[in-house]
Amino acid sequence: MSNSPNSTFSLNDLGGLFRRVRRQSELLCEPLIAEDYVVQTMPDVSPPKWHLAHVSWFFETFILIPFHPGYRRFNRQFHDLFNSYYQGVGTPFPRPRRGLLSRPSVVEVYRYRKHVDRFVEELIAGLDRQPDCERIQQLLILGLNHEQQHQELLMTDIKHIFAQNPLFPCYCEQRHCDKQALNVDLEWIKITGGEVNQGYDGDVFHFDNESPRHKVLLNDFFLANRLITNAEYLDFVRDGGYQNPLLWLSDGWAILQKESWNAPLYWQELDGEWRVMTLSGLQTLEFDEPVCHISYYEADAYANWAGKRLPTESEWEHAANQGSIARGNFLESGLFHPRPALSGQGLMQMFGDVWEWTQSPYSAYPGYRIPEGAVGEYNGKFMCNQMVLRGGSCATPESHIRKSYRNFFYPHNRWQFMGLRLAADA
Amino acid sequence: MSNSPNSTFSLNDLGGLFRRVRRQSELLCEPLIAEDYVVQTMPDVSPPKWHLAHVSWFFETFILIPFHPGYRRFNRQFHDLFNSYYQGVGTPFPRPRRGLLSRPSVVEVYRYRKHVDRFVEELIAGLDRQPDCERIQQLLILGLNHEQQHQELLMTDIKHIFAQNPLFPCYCEQRHCDKQALNVDLEWIKITGGEVNQGYDGDVFHFDNESPRHKVLLNDFFLANRLITNAEYLDFVRDGGYQNPLLWLSDGWAILQKESWNAPLYWQELDGEWRVMTLSGLQTLEFDEPVCHISYYEADAYANWAGKRLPTESEWEHAANQGSIARGNFLESGLFHPRPALSGQGLMQMFGDVWEWTQSPYSAYPGYRIPEGAVGEYNGKFMCNQMVLRGGSCATPESHIRKSYRNFFYPHNRWQFMGLRLAADA
Amino acid sequence: MSNSPNSTFSLNDLGGLFRRVRRQSELLCEPLIAEDYVVQTMPDVSPPKWHLAHVSWFFETFILIPFHPGYRRFNRQFHDLFNSYYQGVGTPFPRPRRGLLSRPSVVEVYRYRKHVDRFVEELIAGLDRQPDCERIQQLLILGLNHEQQHQELLMTDIKHIFAQNPLFPCYCEQRHCDKQALNVDLEWIKITGGEVNQGYDGDVFHFDNESPRHKVLLNDFFLANRLITNAEYLDFVRDGGYQNPLLWLSDGWAILQKESWNAPLYWQELDGEWRVMTLSGLQTLEFDEPVCHISYYEADAYANWAGKRLPTESEWEHAANQGSIARGNFLESGLFHPRPALSGQGLMQMFGDVWEWTQSPYSAYPGYRIPEGAVGEYNGKFMCNQMVLRGGSCATPESHIRKSYRNFFYPHNRWQFMGLRLAADA
Amino acid sequence: MSNSPNSTFSLNDLGGLFRRVRRQSELLCEPLIAEDYVVQTMPDVSPPKWHLAHVSWFFETFILIPFHPGYRRFNRQFHDLFNSYYQGVGTPFPRPRRGLLSRPSVVEVYRYRKHVDRFVEELIAGLDRQPDCERIQQLLILGLNHEQQHQELLMTDIKHIFAQNPLFPCYCEQRHCDKQALNVDLEWIKITGGEVNQGYDGDVFHFDNESPRHKVLLNDFFLANRLITNAEYLDFVRDGGYQNPLLWLSDGWAILQKESWNAPLYWQELDGEWRVMTLSGLQTLEFDEPVCHISYYEADAYANWAGKRLPTESEWEHAANQGSIARGNFLESGLFHPRPALSGQGLMQMFGDVWEWTQSPYSAYPGYRIPEGAVGEYNGKFMCNQMVLRGGSCATPESHIRKSYRNFFYPHNRWQFMGLRLAADA
Repeated sequence: MSNSPNSTFSLNDLGGLFRRVRRQSELLCEPLIAEDYVVQTMPDVSPPKWHLAHVSWFFETFILIPFHPGYRRFNRQFHDLFNSYYQGVGTPFPRPRRGLLSRPSVVEVYRYRKHVDRFVEELIAGLDRQPDCERIQQLLILGLNHEQQHQELLMTDIKHIFAQNPLFPCYCEQRHCDKQALNVDLEWIKITGGEVNQGYDGDVFHFDNESPRHKVLLNDFFLANRLITNAEYLDFVRDGGYQNPLLWLSDGWAILQKESWNAPLYWQELDGEWRVMTLSGLQTLEFDEPVCHISYYEADAYANWAGKRLPTESEWEHAANQGSIARGNFLESGLFHPRPALSGQGLMQMFGDVWEWTQSPYSAYPGYRIPEGAVGEYNGKFMCNQMVLRGGSCATPESHIRKSYRNFFYPHNRWQFMGLRLAADA
Repeated sequence: MSNSPNSTFSLNDLGGLFRRVRRQSELLCEPLIAEDYVVQTMPDVSPPKWHLAHVSWFFETFILIPFHPGYRRFNRQFHDLFNSYYQGVGTPFPRPRRGLLSRPSVVEVYRYRKHVDRFVEELIAGLDRQPDCERIQQLLILGLNHEQQHQELLMTDIKHIFAQNPLFPCYCEQRHCDKQALNVDLEWIKITGGEVNQGYDGDVFHFDNESPRHKVLLNDFFLANRLITNAEYLDFVRDGGYQNPLLWLSDGWAILQKESWNAPLYWQELDGEWRVMTLSGLQTLEFDEPVCHISYYEADAYANWAGKRLPTESEWEHAANQGSIARGNFLESGLFHPRPALSGQGLMQMFGDVWEWTQSPYSAYPGYRIPEGAVGEYNGKFMCNQMVLRGGSCATPESHIRKSYRNFFYPHNRWQFMGLRLAADA
Repeated sequence: MSNSPNSTFSLNDLGGLFRRVRRQSELLCEPLIAEDYVVQTMPDVSPPKWHLAHVSWFFETFILIPFHPGYRRFNRQFHDLFNSYYQGVGTPFPRPRRGLLSRPSVVEVYRYRKHVDRFVEELIAGLDRQPDCERIQQLLILGLNHEQQHQELLMTDIKHIFAQNPLFPCYCEQRHCDKQALNVDLEWIKITGGEVNQGYDGDVFHFDNESPRHKVLLNDFFLANRLITNAEYLDFVRDGGYQNPLLWLSDGWAILQKESWNAPLYWQELDGEWRVMTLSGLQTLEFDEPVCHISYYEADAYANWAGKRLPTESEWEHAANQGSIARGNFLESGLFHPRPALSGQGLMQMFGDVWEWTQSPYSAYPGYRIPEGAVGEYNGKFMCNQMVLRGGSCATPESHIRKSYRNFFYPHNRWQFMGLRLAADA
Repeated sequence: MSNSPNSTFSLNDLGGLFRRVRRQSELLCEPLIAEDYVVQTMPDVSPPKWHLAHVSWFFETFILIPFHPGYRRFNRQFHDLFNSYYQGVGTPFPRPRRGLLSRPSVVEVYRYRKHVDRFVEELIAGLDRQPDCERIQQLLILGLNHEQQHQELLMTDIKHIFAQNPLFPCYCEQRHCDKQALNVDLEWIKITGGEVNQGYDGDVFHFDNESPRHKVLLNDFFLANRLITNAEYLDFVRDGGYQNPLLWLSDGWAILQKESWNAPLYWQELDGEWRVMTLSGLQTLEFDEPVCHISYYEADAYANWAGKRLPTESEWEHAANQGSIARGNFLESGLFHPRPALSGQGLMQMFGDVWEWTQSPYSAYPGYRIPEGAVGEYNGKFMCNQMVLRGGSCATPESHIRKSYRNFFYPHNRWQFMGLRLAADA
């Protein structure tokens, strides 16, 4: 629990928590060489050094500058350079050009981190004497959650960077999980609907988009006990799923044709055998692992092909609320790869492994208001054209996830650890 | 009522109804010269002759070929040429290339219409002796509703075609409506929420996307008594609305910058005065008319600027259900332009004038299943990335609209008659 | 001779000449229906009605407005609308948008032509009383040559428009030429070099780019007696010419891959048989006809494959100067299609049939100066990135061509009647 | 002389020469940090580590593999990865993706260099016992000249990479040259024409595109005694040169508008003062330095504005042939920046400082044949769409340049050290 920025904590804990989360980001970069920190392989991807700097910029911009009178900036030009999209506080350096910057050097970025760390820790040390103590604490917790989000992006971006390289670099050695309990049959769990609650309910940290908690009406429904596997998805591929427009959303079919999609991202067929790029290099496709790196369009097409559907986010959250938050395969496992369902009963793999596409567009909950101030740009302005994913992945810090947590991506995005679980009407 | 394809009718009526709807499409094209029928000014727009042919293709493909044994095709090449997007029945000619076709001539397209008409009327005449009588009737009604949708598109596409032309051609003379009751104040109507029904409830025609009827939970809310006017929107423009990123959705701000939007589509500023392209040519901007030809992004930004929000489609439908379907300014008025609110009480302009953007993404209702067969491509495959609009416009045939009717467009689309009504939390 | 705007003539002749050239443009459009006049199938193509209007605009802008005091404009908006690229006299309507204009109607364009004709004829009638008589005469002759250039473009653009249409419309019936003398063997004519003259030498009309006449040094060389045929080019296609990058210029290989070229424009393979779109619709590929509609890249790759090269324009002109200007297959033949070489001796097909790509970039001759005034934009500003073609085509008016005539297109252009003749070092 | 790969040398020298040229490339990279080696700021630019690897690949592919029986490859995947454009020996990794590769690391690339060096030196050591001795020698000299070309590209690419970075990194300290002799007046040197020789004449190394030597006819002409300066070019800028389409080639005006050019690349106006990005960071624009980083279009527009023209490459070479090859400001000066003309007589700055645009398209000399084998792709396939530049620049190794040397770039390219010298008809 002490690793979680989201549980209640005493002021004493805050400094330690800050150090642990900040340290985690740097640990994730340990396998990198300087060259790996610089590359941007598509506009969605940011160079690793950009992530390391940007999360520091967040603390600098929203906490140190407004609340630490003794703060002196590390480099004034970083103000725009490492602004992601906060139009309210400056002119962000254009996203697609992040990979054109060889400087500041990686060493310089780490110095920037240390600089920010020192002042934040100073601020934390004197926090109880601060008039804005509570606001600062909230922002610090937000900043740590923000950094955890970028820890996941670091991993997915490193994977994308390595995957474009015909040398297929290896981030970490492949660790085989215990295979004893594979081939878990797909079973349907019946969930009873009714008037249920959706949204965050508690008194520690959560994002604005998880609230207000509100009631929704649900029919009874079925939810698959586990994620769809590579083997199951391969049946869809081999059955001509990528050649049949009637299975696809119109926009999905258009992008499939434009991009010549014929399998999930990172899959490669060679002489009739499928291999897959992982953070441990190019590997044989494991049939029992959850299918991963598919777009919403592919998840939806698969569900159509299977005669089923994707769950709504309300259904997913309602189902999740019926169990305790199980341990899952999160960032901390060090696998950086989804693993097969282990034998068990009830809903498995709800947390970790892969984010689960829902059929719910990312929208405001009833009564939602965008927060005041620059951090108001955090979530609300993205509530259009994106779809909700639930449950976290093998790249999500365990302490970061919640049952009410809403992740969101465009339906064509594939570079996150994204997969699917089927649902059906009861 | 006899003009409506959607009310109940005897088989006797069906022939007359068919002729009336088909005639309407041709009447709308009477002001055109041959050259006007050919042009495609952007991929979203289709040449008028394409619309006239495509709606005939629909009857030919889904009714005559399967159900009329004596049917002989007019031209086998039309099968792909006038297929819009039905991947299940052929290979549609690429949409962005529709404007490259000078042939078939306009005369030939009208001959194609007559050919199809003759066989459809023949089929209708013998319908009671048909084993598939009910299915054919359903498809005929669908075909007529389909043609009505293209009647609206005909008008919006002609407007777009004329608007690209520096000569600003005139489709019809401007007809000024009675101005006695202008300057209706904006007032807030309180609507009581609760568990309410949404979706079609009746026994005549409706689209698959309006069902299943289902219950939703609504909070109490306020709805503006009328549409937002040009004057009100101009305040937003003059207040720097198009220069302030904090008012905009992220995707909206991106397209605003890329396309250099600074006002609604068809507005032009000249020497500090605003004019607007209409189907009666370039006209002075009338302040009391509803603002029109704005994207979802603009509607949403306006609402943010005004400190309000857009209604959800559930709210809109619930509010609409509280009144009778009022007469409105539809296609039949012959104005082809929205008109100011007339004095009145309660909700005004709910139907006709302009489609009202809601904050609801276009998604399946709970329990929705895509229909079997090729017409299954009609609605379901578009349930992604689009937003719902409600209420019909001055280009919608009156008999085509319903309280449960769901129109949908991409949030960046502006060339339809689209405007906004504000809502607020109670 | 009386059809030629380029021979000497008395002032009496000028009126008749003007009427004949103007009439020719309209005759070429007789097979069109109104719809055909509107379409623009790529930015290089202009709608036929645009050509008809633009050539009138040229007379209006450069002759009537400056020199006819009684001239009143037909429509002031045409000034920009039908300006092609003369930045010095206004703001040309953007070229890629010419096909978005349904208005002015075709009828209106013909009225514009009559209006201009009337005033030009008036001016010609009083020309001997004009102080600027000589300048006006020069501009009239330039205007007529300009209109002849657009007559060729009319034909190539109509062909492109019809070729995009899966209905393959037919502009004229196919007329088979006399086949008695086919299969003319390819022979090499040796041409003696030395210090030779290049450029126009005479006292009637020529374009500025054909002068100054100057001396060049040429080695002896060989020139093929006739054009390369479809049969010969098909050997190149079948030998994998389009799959072998070593035969291609770097830029050519890039565009081949981007555009998926695998044969000349308008060729179509169906079940192993090649057909070709012509102005008489889709036809079987005739082996003895000159290959046509190839880019410079294809001409150059063919020459590499054949172990030969293309001639320089100096070589071509020097060779042409050794014969009289033979009759050829020009616009007046009414074939609108290249025809096989007829038996004969010496150089055949030097004029007409297809423009012959030379290996010479289009550059200024030594001492060339861009003329003063707006017509200075006619030729000089295009002297970059284009290649010279020589000899005219089956769409060139016979009286328009000269031995010194320099046509020029980008090396990727294919929609003109373009082919090749081989050369070799002696 | 001993630094030149192009002078005659004994076999003893070849090893030393090889080591010196190879060492030079690495010296140029000494100021870089690992991150700088990775970035590609536009498709024309290659990451520095790519240059270092590619020049080694050249020796490996064209010399070691065919001629050194004991050679073992360093990494088989480098065969495609570091192939630039030689379609004859493999499938080059796509040029625009070179900047997506963080691996191989910089350290690995240096190890690759050492590996290749060792085997090449081994081969050289035993060269006199080789049956293919002469061919290997030729290829070694070609490989060294190739590496020198990439030394220039290294500098221009590093400059481009640093210039995109708002931190404006500094490659080297600015070294001010002796300013005593500035403000050299522009004077016109009359050059007598006639039948003159063009092309390489000698018995040491030259590129295939410099031959065959051949005669050309030249009129008398004037050539400016020095390059055009920043001050002179600024007059053009301030006189509205970038706003007047009549000064520009048609293609130039199109790109000016598309790219919003308003000054040479790397110029920045701030508060009415011009600064310029250099390899020593952002500096005040020096008026007496030659204008640099302009496209052909800008050079041509400037010449039009000045009422003059650019020289042809024949004129330039003929003029150059009248003097001895003067020392100039080449790579070896370590300035990496053009310097003002020093007082002197006759033609100044003909060599070094900046490449001089000529009005000559890059074409084959009469009798030119593409060489056999893969190195045949070196020059000939680029003989289209590019313009010739002459004289070398401050980034060209001194021993690399010749009077007959033909450099070539697209007319829109600006990132090389490119400037202009005026000419005029006599």
